[in-house]
Amino acid sequence: MIVVKIGGGSGLNLEAICADIARLVAWEEQVVVVHGGSGEMDLISEKLGRPARIVTSPSGVQSRYTDRETMEIFTMVMAGRVNKMLVECLQRRGVNAVGLSGLDGRLLEGKRKGVLIAVEDGKKKVLRDDYGGIVERVNVSLLRLLLAQGFTPVVAPVAISQEGEPLNVDGDRVAAIVAGALGARALVILSNVPGLLRNFPDECTLVPCIPGDQLEAYQECARGKMKKKLLGAGEALRLGVRRVILADGRREQPILQALVEQNGTVIWGDGHA
Amino acid sequence: MIVVKIGGGSGLNLEAICADIARLVAWEEQVVVVHGGSGEMDLISEKLGRPARIVTSPSGVQSRYTDRETMEIFTMVMAGRVNKMLVECLQRRGVNAVGLSGLDGRLLEGKRKGVLIAVEDGKKKVLRDDYGGIVERVNVSLLRLLLAQGFTPVVAPVAISQEGEPLNVDGDRVAAIVAGALGARALVILSNVPGLLRNFPDECTLVPCIPGDQLEAYQECARGKMKKKLLGAGEALRLGVRRVILADGRREQPILQALVEQNGTVIWGDGHA
Repeated sequence: MIVVKIGGGSGLNLEAICADIARLVAWEEQVVVVHGGSGEMDLISEKLGRPARIVTSPSGVQSRYTDRETMEIFTMVMAGRVNKMLVECLQRRGVNAVGLSGLDGRLLEGKRKGVLIAVEDGKKKVLRDDYGGIVERVNVSLLRLLLAQGFTPVVAPVAISQEGEPLNVDGDRVAAIVAGALGARALVILSNVPGLLRNFPDECTLVPCIPGDQLEAYQECARGKMKKKLLGAGEALRLGVRRVILADGRREQPILQALVEQNGTVIWGDGHA
Repeated sequence: MIVVKIGGGSGLNLEAICADIARLVAWEEQVVVVHGGSGEMDLISEKLGRPARIVTSPSGVQSRYTDRETMEIFTMVMAGRVNKMLVECLQRRGVNAVGLSGLDGRLLEGKRKGVLIAVEDGKKKVLRDDYGGIVERVNVSLLRLLLAQGFTPVVAPVAISQEGEPLNVDGDRVAAIVAGALGARALVILSNVPGLLRNFPDECTLVPCIPGDQLEAYQECARGKMKKKLLGAGEALRLGVRRVILADGRREQPILQALVEQNGTVIWGDGHA
């Protein structure tokens, strides 16, 4: 069982990614796909008159402020555009993909944060009515049901709260908790960088390997979205995933290069000899 | 087993519709939901700079001209907005809904028409690059798998072609073929009219009952989208569904009123004594 997270930034080679997933499925590997889609979200929400408002928390992590209307656009873009584009691409390669959001079958149950603490112009601000959330539970039975019948689940980063509200959740964290809940042996996180860079954006400073217990020390090299990827990696390791690979989704054979050639930043869990 | 089609026009009482579905599910009735969404599609595609182009065929049936870009918006709105809005509404009422498009698991396999014949200014025109299609096969195994585990499938009117392209398909026809494939005992088609009106829009001229073998004679009273609903009803009856009810989705208890009180236009199959 392998979980693949497909980032939502620009430049990813979706055809190559889907071709690799088709290869893995043909080799009878079970694959679950989790995706982002922030690039598409920025584009469509801008066109619909709700330009993205990205805020930075006191600890330096970036988030999208998501009021109710933005949440509806987010769900539409993630579950209807990015998700179905991937399902179409996989189906064309013979992978019997089934797209799901966390609302479907309560696949991803989460908690709404409600308020977002943002630092703007050096001051802390409290933003209310936010639909950001944290996934607390994955209903793996639905995923296992589909996998057992030969379907490949493709999961959009929308969760459902106890009250039945949709929540904007981070795709990297979703991938981590899904990988943990399924007992996946590897989580491959694909984005438009080669992995963690010691001196961003110098690609020659790629960190090839991080022992899981030293992950925290590397947070200071992480810029922008890489911070959440490292948090996700840590979460996956704590949940028992043996290996997390932060890899380049722009190249040919991006998943096979990561899994077989260890191309990217490989983060090993404690169980690794 | 009951199939409910929820129309995409304005004025439907979605809360009341979802409450009725929750009652049916609580009574251990298996329900499959199929929806439209033309109203939302018109709104969003207009905002995204692709206003709807509705054309009329030589036989008087209306269709949306769907080029590739429109098809992408159509998929996004149907599978991501209308579908997830319904899933959310059902989940809030305790129904464990799972939203699917016809791309997912190749649920709805169809044939692309490719060209659309339109009558404009009294002249026949051939519109190419259209992504309109006809559903030819329903992969009921995915629906049955979900139903058997207590999930309630919610199906968006997007099909997949042999070549893996997404297709814009008519929701009423999808509901008909799904009801037929599942051997449903009733198909309830909810829209923002009380049923077939002999003199549209005079609601006092509701046709309460049509024997299936006389359906064709009633096509001449049908205006606009009602033509496709009658076509769908005929298809469902041919596939063995015993009863199709065209009912008012704006009222309280719209499904129960249709099923129990026969409110609406009830169309009986041949098997009816």
